[in-house]
Amino acid sequence: MTSSRLDQLNASLRTFKLDAVALNPGPTLTYLTGLHFHLMERPVVLLYAVGKDPVIVLPELEMPKANLFPYKVNAFAYGENPAEWDSVFRKAVQSLNLDGKKIGVEPRQMRLLEFRHVKAGAPEADFPDASGALSALRLCKDPAEVQKMKRAVKVAQDALEATIPFIKIGMTEKEIAAELNVQLLKHGSESELPFPPIVSAGPNSANPHASPSDRKLQRGDLLVVDWGATVDGYISDLTRTFAVGEADAELKKITQVVLNANEAGRAAGKPGIPCADVDKAARAVIEKAGYGKYFTHRTGHGIGMEGHEEPYMRGDNMQLLAPGMAYTVEPGIYLPDRGGARIEDNVVVTKDGVEVLSDMPRELRVVG
Amino acid sequence: MTSSRLDQLNASLRTFKLDAVALNPGPTLTYLTGLHFHLMERPVVLLYAVGKDPVIVLPELEMPKANLFPYKVNAFAYGENPAEWDSVFRKAVQSLNLDGKKIGVEPRQMRLLEFRHVKAGAPEADFPDASGALSALRLCKDPAEVQKMKRAVKVAQDALEATIPFIKIGMTEKEIAAELNVQLLKHGSESELPFPPIVSAGPNSANPHASPSDRKLQRGDLLVVDWGATVDGYISDLTRTFAVGEADAELKKITQVVLNANEAGRAAGKPGIPCADVDKAARAVIEKAGYGKYFTHRTGHGIGMEGHEEPYMRGDNMQLLAPGMAYTVEPGIYLPDRGGARIEDNVVVTKDGVEVLSDMPRELRVVG
Repeated sequence: MTSSRLDQLNASLRTFKLDAVALNPGPTLTYLTGLHFHLMERPVVLLYAVGKDPVIVLPELEMPKANLFPYKVNAFAYGENPAEWDSVFRKAVQSLNLDGKKIGVEPRQMRLLEFRHVKAGAPEADFPDASGALSALRLCKDPAEVQKMKRAVKVAQDALEATIPFIKIGMTEKEIAAELNVQLLKHGSESELPFPPIVSAGPNSANPHASPSDRKLQRGDLLVVDWGATVDGYISDLTRTFAVGEADAELKKITQVVLNANEAGRAAGKPGIPCADVDKAARAVIEKAGYGKYFTHRTGHGIGMEGHEEPYMRGDNMQLLAPGMAYTVEPGIYLPDRGGARIEDNVVVTKDGVEVLSDMPRELRVVG
Repeated sequence: MTSSRLDQLNASLRTFKLDAVALNPGPTLTYLTGLHFHLMERPVVLLYAVGKDPVIVLPELEMPKANLFPYKVNAFAYGENPAEWDSVFRKAVQSLNLDGKKIGVEPRQMRLLEFRHVKAGAPEADFPDASGALSALRLCKDPAEVQKMKRAVKVAQDALEATIPFIKIGMTEKEIAAELNVQLLKHGSESELPFPPIVSAGPNSANPHASPSDRKLQRGDLLVVDWGATVDGYISDLTRTFAVGEADAELKKITQVVLNANEAGRAAGKPGIPCADVDKAARAVIEKAGYGKYFTHRTGHGIGMEGHEEPYMRGDNMQLLAPGMAYTVEPGIYLPDRGGARIEDNVVVTKDGVEVLSDMPRELRVVG
């Protein structure tokens, strides 16, 4: 599998007119090698130059991993003293004759730590953004990847269902988040969750990126839970909104509008349309209901090995959907100081529409 | 608290002759602001110039956080379209007149994503490594920080004690790791563990950085568990070694040698000595026993908000210990294809020695 992925990388670099790519630990490195490396104070870099065997620079204590590569790799190991690292990187970079070349990087993943070591070995090289060439590899999920995403969705849904009976008025957001975390692991998520769950109620739910707080659930709150699981390196990212005890008419109304927007967003996806159309479909519902200015973020983002990846469902994104692309549909309405609602599902583009991976009830449920 | 930390930053930048610092989400940003920002595809950067009010660049949807700063901050927010981000960063950087100046960065934390946006606003600036100036702030823990570390140690120890009765011959490393993860959260760890626990047995235990595998525990294995908890943003990082059913004479012997080395390493710490002396004290025990070449890593690393931070217990590190510095002592012996042993504790330097934060029994215990 990963050997053919290396062939795809080679082709993609040619297409994007890059001579090479430098990758540090992260999803792309895992995708291409099948191996997990730590992102730590010791830099690890895979150098791949078009048509050549890949090179890995890594600490000596990680050398056993060099034997686990699914293809031939030339390993350059360094010791514990950082003063020696530049010279090892220089040898590695020079072994591929990379100086003066175009060495693509992932700016969202590559740290100055790794970058400066690579640059020390190729001071005259260019380091263009290779996110496009690399995300192209991971953009369309194969059936095995979709299976993993489905399992990540199932684990997440089962974990939240197991948490709901635990939720009571007077409990804090943090307590609910802690229980949900435990349930996620018990139901089979890897311990590295895609992100810490958001559990936000009452006024806090009006902040799309709230962290769970010590505020206690009160009757009448909206409760937003945004959570996900990791299974075999693939993730889910879902949101459901609940009413604590009851909800007033306007909070019920915005939740219904968000549900309608979520349905419209899910229905809009199919091959050949721009991502912008998914955003527009969901946004139109919310704007028509008069809440447009309270929907303050894009409608969704790509999903797979990362919580946020291409393609992005933004009104200005003319990237065309294609079979295998996976993304979230997550419209929301946030009324400052009162409360917010968001409903998020995960979908994969099929040959004529989308498959919705998540099926947990979306209607406003009463908890507590 | 965080206001005085800003004063300390100001003083540290003057000492290190830096005009400013640019920080992205991570421990230093949290230390200085008391706030958590996401490390994501949307860049967040705090710019601090000596003697001026800090500036934060962040996405519009994170703007509510700008009001939570413990001091005055000038916020520059950008929308969802990445094409606009450079101009917002330029305004922010120019508001501090930073072009041509020395803007310190943390290479281990700063990604090319944030760096390139900052650089776009200050193309003639230098971006020296400010890790020294910044880690100096966090290097010596105050009593409140030590309390949090003690709680992180207690949560970790209680979680492993709760996991031990669960361990049986025939169980996989992954199953044990999953149970330990659940117990860590149940005992009060934050969901963002400092690192995924290492549970490695038999030949896998000879790899200091093994990931839990599907290999089943066998009688006679050494079982290494390297785990930690996060409490209030501070972490613990411990290792204990167990015998599954029984262990042969040499495996028992290396575990005893490692325990002796751990004791020597813990005993060596006190203010005024170089970190190297801690490494040498532990290493001498292992070398004397004839296993020097199987102790393939440094003796320890600093610990606090990060799993690995300064000071590093390396044989070449002449940095002097001072009260409040916290670090791990974790010697190990790894016999390839047979098994390994490591025993790791967390200590804080006091006025005349160290306080050992962890007290879980270190002797070889039989499990399964």
